Amino acid sequence: MTFDELYEQIAGGKMSKDEARRHFSLEWMETARNYIADVNRGARINIPEIIYGEYKTADQTVELADAWLTRHSGVLVSRSPHQATLVDYFNDRYSVRETPLLLAIGDFPEPKGHVLVISAGAADHPVASECSLALEALGVNPVVFEDRGIAHPTRVLDAVMEGMNKKVAAVIVVAGMEGALAPFVSSLVPLPVVGVPTSVGYGFRANEAALTSMLASCAPNLTVVNIDGGIRAAVVAGLIAKNSSL
Amino acid sequence: MTFDELYEQIAGGKMSKDEARRHFSLEWMETARNYIADVNRGARINIPEIIYGEYKTADQTVELADAWLTRHSGVLVSRSPHQATLVDYFNDRYSVRETPLLLAIGDFPEPKGHVLVISAGAADHPVASECSLALEALGVNPVVFEDRGIAHPTRVLDAVMEGMNKKVAAVIVVAGMEGALAPFVSSLVPLPVVGVPTSVGYGFRANEAALTSMLASCAPNLTVVNIDGGIRAAVVAGLIAKNSSL
Amino acid sequence: MTFDELYEQIAGGKMSKDEARRHFSLEWMETARNYIADVNRGARINIPEIIYGEYKTADQTVELADAWLTRHSGVLVSRSPHQATLVDYFNDRYSVRETPLLLAIGDFPEPKGHVLVISAGAADHPVASECSLALEALGVNPVVFEDRGIAHPTRVLDAVMEGMNKKVAAVIVVAGMEGALAPFVSSLVPLPVVGVPTSVGYGFRANEAALTSMLASCAPNLTVVNIDGGIRAAVVAGLIAKNSSL
Amino acid sequence: MTFDELYEQIAGGKMSKDEARRHFSLEWMETARNYIADVNRGARINIPEIIYGEYKTADQTVELADAWLTRHSGVLVSRSPHQATLVDYFNDRYSVRETPLLLAIGDFPEPKGHVLVISAGAADHPVASECSLALEALGVNPVVFEDRGIAHPTRVLDAVMEGMNKKVAAVIVVAGMEGALAPFVSSLVPLPVVGVPTSVGYGFRANEAALTSMLASCAPNLTVVNIDGGIRAAVVAGLIAKNSSL
Amino acid sequence: MTFDELYEQIAGGKMSKDEARRHFSLEWMETARNYIADVNRGARINIPEIIYGEYKTADQTVELADAWLTRHSGVLVSRSPHQATLVDYFNDRYSVRETPLLLAIGDFPEPKGHVLVISAGAADHPVASECSLALEALGVNPVVFEDRGIAHPTRVLDAVMEGMNKKVAAVIVVAGMEGALAPFVSSLVPLPVVGVPTSVGYGFRANEAALTSMLASCAPNLTVVNIDGGIRAAVVAGLIAKNSSL
Amino acid sequence: MTFDELYEQIAGGKMSKDEARRHFSLEWMETARNYIADVNRGARINIPEIIYGEYKTADQTVELADAWLTRHSGVLVSRSPHQATLVDYFNDRYSVRETPLLLAIGDFPEPKGHVLVISAGAADHPVASECSLALEALGVNPVVFEDRGIAHPTRVLDAVMEGMNKKVAAVIVVAGMEGALAPFVSSLVPLPVVGVPTSVGYGFRANEAALTSMLASCAPNLTVVNIDGGIRAAVVAGLIAKNSSL
Amino acid sequence: MTFDELYEQIAGGKMSKDEARRHFSLEWMETARNYIADVNRGARINIPEIIYGEYKTADQTVELADAWLTRHSGVLVSRSPHQATLVDYFNDRYSVRETPLLLAIGDFPEPKGHVLVISAGAADHPVASECSLALEALGVNPVVFEDRGIAHPTRVLDAVMEGMNKKVAAVIVVAGMEGALAPFVSSLVPLPVVGVPTSVGYGFRANEAALTSMLASCAPNLTVVNIDGGIRAAVVAGLIAKNSSL
Amino acid sequence: MTFDELYEQIAGGKMSKDEARRHFSLEWMETARNYIADVNRGARINIPEIIYGEYKTADQTVELADAWLTRHSGVLVSRSPHQATLVDYFNDRYSVRETPLLLAIGDFPEPKGHVLVISAGAADHPVASECSLALEALGVNPVVFEDRGIAHPTRVLDAVMEGMNKKVAAVIVVAGMEGALAPFVSSLVPLPVVGVPTSVGYGFRANEAALTSMLASCAPNLTVVNIDGGIRAAVVAGLIAKNSSL
Repeated sequence: MTFDELYEQIAGGKMSKDEARRHFSLEWMETARNYIADVNRGARINIPEIIYGEYKTADQTVELADAWLTRHSGVLVSRSPHQATLVDYFNDRYSVRETPLLLAIGDFPEPKGHVLVISAGAADHPVASECSLALEALGVNPVVFEDRGIAHPTRVLDAVMEGMNKKVAAVIVVAGMEGALAPFVSSLVPLPVVGVPTSVGYGFRANEAALTSMLASCAPNLTVVNIDGGIRAAVVAGLIAKNSSL
Repeated sequence: MTFDELYEQIAGGKMSKDEARRHFSLEWMETARNYIADVNRGARINIPEIIYGEYKTADQTVELADAWLTRHSGVLVSRSPHQATLVDYFNDRYSVRETPLLLAIGDFPEPKGHVLVISAGAADHPVASECSLALEALGVNPVVFEDRGIAHPTRVLDAVMEGMNKKVAAVIVVAGMEGALAPFVSSLVPLPVVGVPTSVGYGFRANEAALTSMLASCAPNLTVVNIDGGIRAAVVAGLIAKNSSL
Repeated sequence: MTFDELYEQIAGGKMSKDEARRHFSLEWMETARNYIADVNRGARINIPEIIYGEYKTADQTVELADAWLTRHSGVLVSRSPHQATLVDYFNDRYSVRETPLLLAIGDFPEPKGHVLVISAGAADHPVASECSLALEALGVNPVVFEDRGIAHPTRVLDAVMEGMNKKVAAVIVVAGMEGALAPFVSSLVPLPVVGVPTSVGYGFRANEAALTSMLASCAPNLTVVNIDGGIRAAVVAGLIAKNSSL
Repeated sequence: MTFDELYEQIAGGKMSKDEARRHFSLEWMETARNYIADVNRGARINIPEIIYGEYKTADQTVELADAWLTRHSGVLVSRSPHQATLVDYFNDRYSVRETPLLLAIGDFPEPKGHVLVISAGAADHPVASECSLALEALGVNPVVFEDRGIAHPTRVLDAVMEGMNKKVAAVIVVAGMEGALAPFVSSLVPLPVVGVPTSVGYGFRANEAALTSMLASCAPNLTVVNIDGGIRAAVVAGLIAKNSSL
Repeated sequence: MTFDELYEQIAGGKMSKDEARRHFSLEWMETARNYIADVNRGARINIPEIIYGEYKTADQTVELADAWLTRHSGVLVSRSPHQATLVDYFNDRYSVRETPLLLAIGDFPEPKGHVLVISAGAADHPVASECSLALEALGVNPVVFEDRGIAHPTRVLDAVMEGMNKKVAAVIVVAGMEGALAPFVSSLVPLPVVGVPTSVGYGFRANEAALTSMLASCAPNLTVVNIDGGIRAAVVAGLIAKNSSL
Repeated sequence: MTFDELYEQIAGGKMSKDEARRHFSLEWMETARNYIADVNRGARINIPEIIYGEYKTADQTVELADAWLTRHSGVLVSRSPHQATLVDYFNDRYSVRETPLLLAIGDFPEPKGHVLVISAGAADHPVASECSLALEALGVNPVVFEDRGIAHPTRVLDAVMEGMNKKVAAVIVVAGMEGALAPFVSSLVPLPVVGVPTSVGYGFRANEAALTSMLASCAPNLTVVNIDGGIRAAVVAGLIAKNSSL
Repeated sequence: MTFDELYEQIAGGKMSKDEARRHFSLEWMETARNYIADVNRGARINIPEIIYGEYKTADQTVELADAWLTRHSGVLVSRSPHQATLVDYFNDRYSVRETPLLLAIGDFPEPKGHVLVISAGAADHPVASECSLALEALGVNPVVFEDRGIAHPTRVLDAVMEGMNKKVAAVIVVAGMEGALAPFVSSLVPLPVVGVPTSVGYGFRANEAALTSMLASCAPNLTVVNIDGGIRAAVVAGLIAKNSSL
Repeated sequence: MTFDELYEQIAGGKMSKDEARRHFSLEWMETARNYIADVNRGARINIPEIIYGEYKTADQTVELADAWLTRHSGVLVSRSPHQATLVDYFNDRYSVRETPLLLAIGDFPEPKGHVLVISAGAADHPVASECSLALEALGVNPVVFEDRGIAHPTRVLDAVMEGMNKKVAAVIVVAGMEGALAPFVSSLVPLPVVGVPTSVGYGFRANEAALTSMLASCAPNLTVVNIDGGIRAAVVAGLIAKNSSL
């Protein structure tokens, strides 16, 4: 449960003082057999719980997600090798949405504010769609344009113009290979830009070229997340949009 | 040459292939030029001009800054090896403020909003003070705590608490060595955090350890800029604060 | 459609003004459901369209290629993991040629000019044959000698002599391991040489050794493309040959 | 003596058969006390002799250059730490031109053909001016635009348009930091582009970011030379221009 | 051959130089051999034999383990790809315990002393459980807390407090990603800490980030072992605990 | 603000969401602060304060050291570029001891227990002597043998034998170049060994070779600290010795 | 075309510059060709032909080997993924011997001289046995000791002593992990030592640690080959042994 | 004292049994105040003592060299930053020879056998001359050709032919930049080749390119030493030549 949800419940009179206290307490733990879910962390940082699924077994992941969903309206599972199994398991009882790298189970807040997401190529789709779904789970509207590489400069411009018209509060640029899309877009907008370098490419430093390029860029309004780190970009851009006055 | 003219000339056999190809390229670029001018309108108004001084001679830098100051109220000069010369030169006519890596010449906007800046150690001072001065030049109030490394966790908490009390809209964490301060602070705040890895350290990957650590972090609300990239962090955090509803 | 094709059609009276205008326009787009083909880019840079197949599904690739072929005489598909499927699909309606890393579907221009392609070993065949087919698709004659490593210097000399006799305008050297063939050939010819380092090798920096070596070379007439970047070498050498007076 | 000069002398009746034979012979050597100058190499590859000065003493360099100039009209000296000494020494007897990284002593051929040279920033001046002077020494006209980074896209377009108007046969892009200028320019021109990554930058992979980016680029008409390798770019682009039919 | 004999033979001209050199070497090594045997006596008694199974066939591993068990009460097999086969084979005759990366066959000493083992995430379980089982095989009591990442600081504190209460003599911290748990724990305890960086993570230096971070840490009481080197950490911490007066 | 008050305010509609979120964060941190203070009690008493002097000015360092010495009997200053100045300043009032990388000012505890320190070569002296002095400052007796590289195996054996005779509780091995001394010594002793790779060497990975080698070693009782990290090795080995029952 | 003819044609204005340049290049290469053939005479007779099988198809490999065996008594095939197929194919007609990485087909010379081969662990067997078989194919007697790691120094000494007794002319040390065996053995013998770093290991620079260590070693009589480069070590050591007077 | 010298003294009746025994003993040490000279190591590995001067003070180096020269005829000092001081100090009493990286003090054995040393460029002179002087100190005749890069193939051939005529037993190739000279020479000779990559070059992996290239080479008779490791190459090639039957 994020802080926003918690506040709404208390303010709306839907949560007793006892129940609320547990969410504030440091002592209270949700224990899923072996692994610990720090329940009030979501509240503390106002971000829905994200289970990092990459190294977990299907059983571990189901157990953790189930435990969460008994008390919260939704949970995200990222990079699970058992995504199909999870969809089957939760499908009946919850609303389930998925992209290649992310699974959203349950209900999420009403959207508020906009973030522009531009990707360089079709190969960046898994990461771009991860950004998009994560933004929705955070309660922010994504404005998405895929396959807008720098090789087609006018197509980039179209996307940026449309984003500006929608009054986005931040921009996410998803790009692999030389990642030149990120500094190019950054030079066009008076907004914070979060670059997500992807591992798309071949040859020399195939998977690190875009990261190297984005870090070295002289664009002053560009920050970077880890390679293929779509969720992190969505969380940062989402927090900006949620608190934005634009 | 209009498209119609171009077509007629080719169709009429009056223009060679080489000549035509050149016209085709020029035509296309003229159109792209107009597009960009359109998108770009007003893009820069939120960020003061920053002259990257590192590889420039004193003469080049003075000339560039002078040209700017005839039209604008202020300019920033970063990493200039000729900073003392610049201070002498501009001192009489303008208000001049300096930190080891940044020089602010002229007047800047009234501050609005707050950003928290925490550094890990005294050795990070050049970068932390660069963040602070750049934020002021952007028109944002910095709330600065230096020398708050993870080795003294309670002093980190104190700094974060004071920042929260000041209603900061974003947090900048400046840290070298293992850079563990950035994920620790990120776990404590419901805000976007911009990590600035510094080149402070010795031994293995002395200058890259903090960057590596911050990129690899599992904190979802943490983005990163280049090593020692204090200005970029300030610009991004500043843009967040200026548009923030907090 | 490359610029050369476009010119020929207009000059030959085979394309109406309306049709031609679309190729010049920035607005006009070929939309293949989700992905965008910037139709006039081929014309702009005078290179046949190349679909980068490595991260695309078979369906995406077929859809993109089909869209292209409704308007253009030919298309290239590189590094597709679904090459066999594509061959089956396009075989009936188009002329199809393939090498391990490249597929050429449809018709390409009459060849003009020559480029010499020399590879160091049999293991470099996938890249060398990619160069060769891409040159043909560009409308240039490849002169190919494979398996001419520096371990047999006289066989290198034979290949270079034959290339000089054919009046090649540029040389492509394809080599893995230590890549010493590239500087050796460069020292022998008064022509631009494009080195293609391959990922062939084992042990220390197995896949980067040839790139490192070619970049560090003191041969003044040698440029380099990415590891296994056969197409890029062919495009550059092909553009040189097409505009050459040799 | 380059091949071009040799041909002109024979065709013009200014060189005897004996004299000419020596230039063709493998046996004939110019010995400068300890180091060997392979005299006919220049002729073989049609490029003026370039003395790599970086690790040589002033005496060694003077001796080598003197030996050359007794028989040839001009010589280039690159990266000499003793450039001022060399200028003093040769100033009286020869025409001497210099840029920070290159010294041209003596006379060079009449220019023919054009090459466009675009640099991203003022900090790239040493490499851009090296390209320019080397092109002139090769007998090619440079068309130079400096400080045209991707942060100002319309200024890039202006430079490219002017180059196209001058009918350049090839483009050299000199850029440090993220090097995004190279793929951007490549997407605009139907010509071979030679990227020269420079060592300008700070932070992560400060000196390798542009190289990484240019190698990873998906622009098909872009090749790359070593970091700060301005001479190599000039030689390759110059050979293209000299043999071009544009 | 004694020295005296050797000398007499050389001095008497009865031994060639080659022959003498061999004898000299052999003589020296015989003496060194005795030295080592002397120093080495009893060195290994504190550490059970560990068969490194990663590159061995099942047959090789069984043979080696069998040989050991004829003389010793127990043996450890690490990283064997044939673990299931080994369990089947030894199950009947010996007590067998296993974790994903380690197999303990036979009997081990009575435990004495305590070591605290804290891991950052569920994904670190294979390494954390390897530490735990190896400690038991050494004759030390592990006190294990898994899934206590720095994102939940209070859960880390709980674990450290409980370990201090148990009077542990050393602490092992197992962490992947940015590895920030290790310096954080080190700042809390007056004990030697052994950091085990794990290969858990994705993106930039995915498998080396924790190692980089732990080496660069300014915590003075933190040492590090190889990535995923759980056994080494257990042996070192175990030796500390066994000789501890705490 | 107590939880009850906070709840009442929200439930009563008297507190906005933004205001509430801040209180929630602050509340949580206050609690965490108390936890840490509790855990941390007495944690530092076993390690003297170490001022990391590398990036500090002389003034900063003097001020910090002075402040410490008003309350404590001694302080260590490591890697200060102003060591001579510090010696002059503190010489009169305190006992001062120095090695090239470490300065000990004031009084330290009576020694108890022994640690063996072996270095590979004379070039490792600055790090070996740093270990030695730091051990004394911790209150442990160092047993030091320098210049005992693996090229002289018998000299290594002598040192180890003498250390064993002195009943050392741990061994520190200081070595640069290939660092082979560390695994060799580890194979000889039934004790924890702390390897300190030094930056001594030339050529390939000159400064990282010893670190690489020590991490990769199969010696189970060897841990590693950062390159040239003599203090960390001394602190860890010293803590082992002080709590040892040997 | 003789030089005289060439000169007359140019001087007489009968040959264009382009045509002349080509002839000039060809002339030069014809001369160089004769030089190389002369130097190269008999160069290869001491090393049997080695077909590098790693990237070749079964058909390519069979064809190449068959061609060789019609003229020579034996051939080696290294790293072929089709080794089983090759054994089946050649089994009937030739003597065939194999190790995991090498196949020897046909007859080889009578052995002369000895080379000592020592490996550090059982995991190095594929490379150690490759050395052994390659030495036999070269006509040299291998003296092989496997599994003699530095963790058991006396067993290393035993192996070296036996090698010295057999009058070996050179030593090959095969070792992975930290590779410390190579400098240790080098310090014991008055002979050239060839180190073969293997890719055995896990964790940090798992496959490069032994290479790094061997290159950095201060042993003056140690050279190194590529990782897992057993054949190269065998060829070099074999050539030493065949020409040795020991 | 090398073994060869020792043998000659005993066989010639110039050394008493007592004196000789000390050279054989493990106990006997030469102590130069703080540092230990393992006197019988030289004898054990038959190589003159080499003092690695790079990190030593002038005093330390003088002390060590003096101690040696009281008992031995000669000593080598490599990479000393105090070379001029050493020359002054030893000049009167001993024969002194120097190259930029190596100093030979005293007398050395009569030369026997030949080794060919070829360097690629004038910039490699410091390393090539180090090889040459070290070979002489070992008692082997160097046959040296400098400045024979692969850009001038015929000059390489001349050098190789002359070396073969002198019946060299091994070849040393010294090369920086792309290091292509080493595989080229290896393809021409039926002898062991030792490649010495130098740190000469600029740009990408400036100092490691030649090493990378030489390790990756497919030449079977090529081994490699550390970057700029001229002494190691000389020792290995020298040992080959001294024991050669050629």
